[in-house]
Amino acid sequence: MKRVTIHDVARKAGVSVTTVSRVLNDRGYISNEMKEKVLNTIEELNYIPNEMARSFFSNQSKFIALIVPTTENPFFGELTFHVEKALAKFGYHLFICNSLNDSENEEKYLRLLNEKRVDGIIVGSHNVDISEYKNYEDQIVSIERKLTKNIPMVQSDDYNGGRLATQELITQGCTNILCVTGDKNVETPANDRSIGYVDEIEKNNYRKNFIEIPFQIDLDEKLKIIKETFQGDFKYDGVFAGDDVNAKLFLNVAKEMGYDVPKDVKVIGFDGTQSIRYLVPELSTVVQPIENLAYEAVTTLLDLLKGKKVKNEVILPVELYLSETTQGSKK
Amino acid sequence: MKRVTIHDVARKAGVSVTTVSRVLNDRGYISNEMKEKVLNTIEELNYIPNEMARSFFSNQSKFIALIVPTTENPFFGELTFHVEKALAKFGYHLFICNSLNDSENEEKYLRLLNEKRVDGIIVGSHNVDISEYKNYEDQIVSIERKLTKNIPMVQSDDYNGGRLATQELITQGCTNILCVTGDKNVETPANDRSIGYVDEIEKNNYRKNFIEIPFQIDLDEKLKIIKETFQGDFKYDGVFAGDDVNAKLFLNVAKEMGYDVPKDVKVIGFDGTQSIRYLVPELSTVVQPIENLAYEAVTTLLDLLKGKKVKNEVILPVELYLSETTQGSKK
Repeated sequence: MKRVTIHDVARKAGVSVTTVSRVLNDRGYISNEMKEKVLNTIEELNYIPNEMARSFFSNQSKFIALIVPTTENPFFGELTFHVEKALAKFGYHLFICNSLNDSENEEKYLRLLNEKRVDGIIVGSHNVDISEYKNYEDQIVSIERKLTKNIPMVQSDDYNGGRLATQELITQGCTNILCVTGDKNVETPANDRSIGYVDEIEKNNYRKNFIEIPFQIDLDEKLKIIKETFQGDFKYDGVFAGDDVNAKLFLNVAKEMGYDVPKDVKVIGFDGTQSIRYLVPELSTVVQPIENLAYEAVTTLLDLLKGKKVKNEVILPVELYLSETTQGSKK
Repeated sequence: MKRVTIHDVARKAGVSVTTVSRVLNDRGYISNEMKEKVLNTIEELNYIPNEMARSFFSNQSKFIALIVPTTENPFFGELTFHVEKALAKFGYHLFICNSLNDSENEEKYLRLLNEKRVDGIIVGSHNVDISEYKNYEDQIVSIERKLTKNIPMVQSDDYNGGRLATQELITQGCTNILCVTGDKNVETPANDRSIGYVDEIEKNNYRKNFIEIPFQIDLDEKLKIIKETFQGDFKYDGVFAGDDVNAKLFLNVAKEMGYDVPKDVKVIGFDGTQSIRYLVPELSTVVQPIENLAYEAVTTLLDLLKGKKVKNEVILPVELYLSETTQGSKK
């Protein structure tokens, strides 16, 4: 049985090839009647337009989806940018999914794999039950999220970042350091940041102090939690915040309450996006290699899709960036 | 001629329907030989899997692409978030394209329309020659970009924003105000911000001062240009920056050079993203209604795709947010 071509459709419908092409591409003027006739013939002959056939039989869409909580956050905005840049290098396009506030979204995006709309997914967030991911282990790579035993993960050296920041605060003379974490119920390597904190604190026999600020709540609510920390007698002389947004909010509140930074309280954040580094240069932070995280995730995923053996875990080094919020102004 | 079903494929290939389904979905173990046989039969019978057929004949992919310069920038990170949220409300998914540094990217994305991979595009950036857009006038809406006469545009009231900011600086006593613009060769409604500035300055018979900082250059280069402004005798007592990133960089440099803000120099930015408002609360700025811009662009595009008549231009009001960088600290 010969494959049906556009010429067969044109002949059968009694129209020109150009007309069929116009209907297929929805271009130029075509009467509804003519359109109907062409579409009916296409259906009747089971004609598959070339590009559909090509993409279907090659089993490749050349699209990769990226699931992040929200591109509003500087870390994920920057990560998205670099993932797209890395994918473009290999001829792939990017889908984006802001999954925050909607766990159904994430399920919908997993279904894209089934429909062959995307070849693979990079997951930088998860709300869906982990078991859902089991069906797609050979098409997913995660960034800073442990999904299943077999899904490869790319992450920063969170543990060492937590240690470096805490060590630095101790070196600068802090003895009562607060650790700001995300929602501890969400299992992510980011929790290793506070393990690094704990290990350094215990080594020095200081008290461990924690405050939890869930990632997905409003900035307004975050601010409220931070202000409450300062109620009564604020007693911390150091703050290690697991992300830069919280670190900066702490700085703002401290200044608003009349504290002298860094004399009364020193602050170190985490992430070190380019925009935070330039817009808030006074903030000390642990810098994640965001561009490299993106590149590693992309190349690992593309290797996986080719059936190559890939590393189950890639851990990239972080760097401590020190500024006046820990060391005092250099002026 | 009856449409070929999955049952016909299974019967002809001599396998179970489950096996055909597995091959189609690339799931479960199937020998290469079996896979080959099923794929050959699919080809031979011209079988169109349901979801492909559905999406093809309905002529809808339910995907919309958004082209922005870069999600690294807080404005576009936030815009992307809100566009995705609005699309989700109507059952659509979002493609993202960071077009910065690569005008070819933009052309590639226009081609997606041809391939029916997306139903429409929201353009928040352009590098491609405008004429390219002429072929897609009924499938595109722009945000803050004038593409062609017929492509609907959603924008903030940039002109009024420029006026409000300049008026405020004058009210606060500034007499020598610098206006920071983007690349003036790029035709965008954002240029109206400086027209608003000009009108207010002329009304008061002050001198007009401009400095151009192209959007797409590195933050490092932006910083260099700003530092040069302060060389010699820095003589401006007010700065109106067309975006918050430049406004904050100006603030940082002014402080680094020992200027007293707002006594020596007052600064007002533009955009007013949530993250800037919370992270840099000391910055005065003209707040764009980003969530509404996104919602208007999405609903306009969906109406357009349904063949409804839509407004050619939607202009949304802006608001001036004043803080200590113009008014002095309230402490």
